[in-house]
Amino acid sequence: MAGLGAAAAGGAALVVRPGDPLPASFTSLGTGEATIGFHGPRQAGVTTEPPAHAAFVALTLNRGSDRDTLRRMLRLLTDDVARLTRGEPALGDTDAQLAVLPAALTVTFGFGPGLYQAAGLTSPVADLPGFSIDRLQDRWSGGDLLLQICADDALTVTHTQRMLIKDARPFAAVRWVQRGFRRSPGVHAAGFTQRNVFGQLDGTANPKDAAMETAVWAPDGSTTLVVRRIRTEIETWDLLSVADKEAAVGRRMDSGAPLTGTAEHDEPDFTAVDDTGLPVMPDFAHVTRAHMTDPRFKILRRPYNYDEAPDSAGRPDSGLIFASYQADIARQYLPIQRRLAEKDLLNEWTTPIGSAVFAIPPGCSEGGWIGERFLDS
Amino acid sequence: MAGLGAAAAGGAALVVRPGDPLPASFTSLGTGEATIGFHGPRQAGVTTEPPAHAAFVALTLNRGSDRDTLRRMLRLLTDDVARLTRGEPALGDTDAQLAVLPAALTVTFGFGPGLYQAAGLTSPVADLPGFSIDRLQDRWSGGDLLLQICADDALTVTHTQRMLIKDARPFAAVRWVQRGFRRSPGVHAAGFTQRNVFGQLDGTANPKDAAMETAVWAPDGSTTLVVRRIRTEIETWDLLSVADKEAAVGRRMDSGAPLTGTAEHDEPDFTAVDDTGLPVMPDFAHVTRAHMTDPRFKILRRPYNYDEAPDSAGRPDSGLIFASYQADIARQYLPIQRRLAEKDLLNEWTTPIGSAVFAIPPGCSEGGWIGERFLDS
Repeated sequence: MAGLGAAAAGGAALVVRPGDPLPASFTSLGTGEATIGFHGPRQAGVTTEPPAHAAFVALTLNRGSDRDTLRRMLRLLTDDVARLTRGEPALGDTDAQLAVLPAALTVTFGFGPGLYQAAGLTSPVADLPGFSIDRLQDRWSGGDLLLQICADDALTVTHTQRMLIKDARPFAAVRWVQRGFRRSPGVHAAGFTQRNVFGQLDGTANPKDAAMETAVWAPDGSTTLVVRRIRTEIETWDLLSVADKEAAVGRRMDSGAPLTGTAEHDEPDFTAVDDTGLPVMPDFAHVTRAHMTDPRFKILRRPYNYDEAPDSAGRPDSGLIFASYQADIARQYLPIQRRLAEKDLLNEWTTPIGSAVFAIPPGCSEGGWIGERFLDS
Repeated sequence: MAGLGAAAAGGAALVVRPGDPLPASFTSLGTGEATIGFHGPRQAGVTTEPPAHAAFVALTLNRGSDRDTLRRMLRLLTDDVARLTRGEPALGDTDAQLAVLPAALTVTFGFGPGLYQAAGLTSPVADLPGFSIDRLQDRWSGGDLLLQICADDALTVTHTQRMLIKDARPFAAVRWVQRGFRRSPGVHAAGFTQRNVFGQLDGTANPKDAAMETAVWAPDGSTTLVVRRIRTEIETWDLLSVADKEAAVGRRMDSGAPLTGTAEHDEPDFTAVDDTGLPVMPDFAHVTRAHMTDPRFKILRRPYNYDEAPDSAGRPDSGLIFASYQADIARQYLPIQRRLAEKDLLNEWTTPIGSAVFAIPPGCSEGGWIGERFLDS
């Protein structure tokens, strides 16, 4: 690391030497130059800290695509991504000066069921079953190839998206693009839980460290991704009292603590009852429905907020691009989603309007390409 | 200023004491807590450094609005903004926890011709004349009241926009909302010129210091704002060679230097000719057309990039939310715009699709409200 900072609290200068941990109140201004390695047995952009901006780009393969066209497309896109994530222009980059600040850029490739079908292979993922709460729209659902583009700078995301869509053009059409955001760099310390447009802390129960390893990764370095566009009904949510919001979520709005605790990461106590004998954590609360104690059944939430233009009456079009990574959708995601669909009070103020699933194949080595293990045969 | 940083180049620790300038490679992690004062003789969000995110919200006043309804609306919105810019919830804030990280939030009020008309007053601003290059759409044009919301965090902009639109609802409808972005905090040092989606440095010729004072502010603390939505035709722009792009702009794509210079801020030499006797700065180049030597005739560009979802063929919907501040639109903006409309080669790859003008009234003191000087009588 080239730069280190010193915090001067209360007027006195502090000195930090290279190798010392960075004081919490300082960060290097190298946000633009920061890079995250692309090559390796697992793809980046999964367990790496989610940066401030994301574009989820879903493509539909041209009719008649086969293993050969897939190989050519994935070689080309992999080469683009390997360069862009290093802060170098892609080979055919016509706006090279927009490539020089990668800002922790990652591009994660996801393969939908249609890609496996085109390759004559059995898909490891299938569309989710319908849930009674779903109001899915085609324009936000499905996709043969997903490019999850994340960076700490919106212009970097814009340029990367442009470059990859341009190079994918001979092979595929754009099905949908969802742009989302989290807190800007420097607003929170790393690892801080983000808030969503409802004001909730979102992602508290994510698995950590060894539990993350088990929950997310298959032994071959692959994982799966569920992307759901969840519209928030802010107009009616805003009519609730804070106490009602907290009952619906099962957590305090300010601290994110469970209703039985005092700090964000306290374990909820589902056996606690109040003076009247009712559970403090209501059975219908989002946290009660979503809770998984066994780390093997947890999912890694990596969501982004969205906020499109409101209508003329001022009604917002905002919500969450829910994105979860898990080793096995059937074993981990579906049981949670079934329990939520059945009786999560939060369903009153949220509506799933898009849904897509992708296998995330293993990473590749330098000179290799994403998907080579099963397409190059 | 509470925090100062030390750059440790090449491994040796440096010490910076409070009051020293911050080394270029460090910034405080207080991005979320940063505030910009709201009260004063001039509004904030004009000559203050533009932060990473902006929403331009244009409202249409209800029919039958008069001076009394305007007073009530502006008192309410001013009170909201005074609180939100300090990092406090608005009085009627139903998502208070989204208000605590202002991230250098500014909200700048602009009054369109329709607001003056409703108040029975002569408007100091009028819609721009049509230009042959215009392809204006109603959905991006006009507006009685503008709220220019800027912050270094997208969620802060989202919450502020939601809160102000909600409180404006009894008085006005949403006409249009344009969300835009610049580089994230920490990506560039303060004062660095941003790049637009074409990859150009954008804002190099902005007036500085004393020239800014003259160019932007009228003696009473007011100014004016022109907002133009300018779509960039990236598909055809991408077909140009770097040399052709540079001829169209009059500057180098990488450094932003004029074609007669070597550094971004070198003054262009319009008398220089090349080996063949042709001007090095072509007459049709954007910089040649836009150049103003006299600081009284300069404008302060404060633009944001936009990038909406591409169509299924991958054609981008992106461009520039051009925003310029100037003391006098007729004397400063219009002459430049006329010269550009007449013969700027860049017109080939840019299309104005929205246009609006606003008077920016003076600021107010604590307890006062924006517009009081001429509405409270």
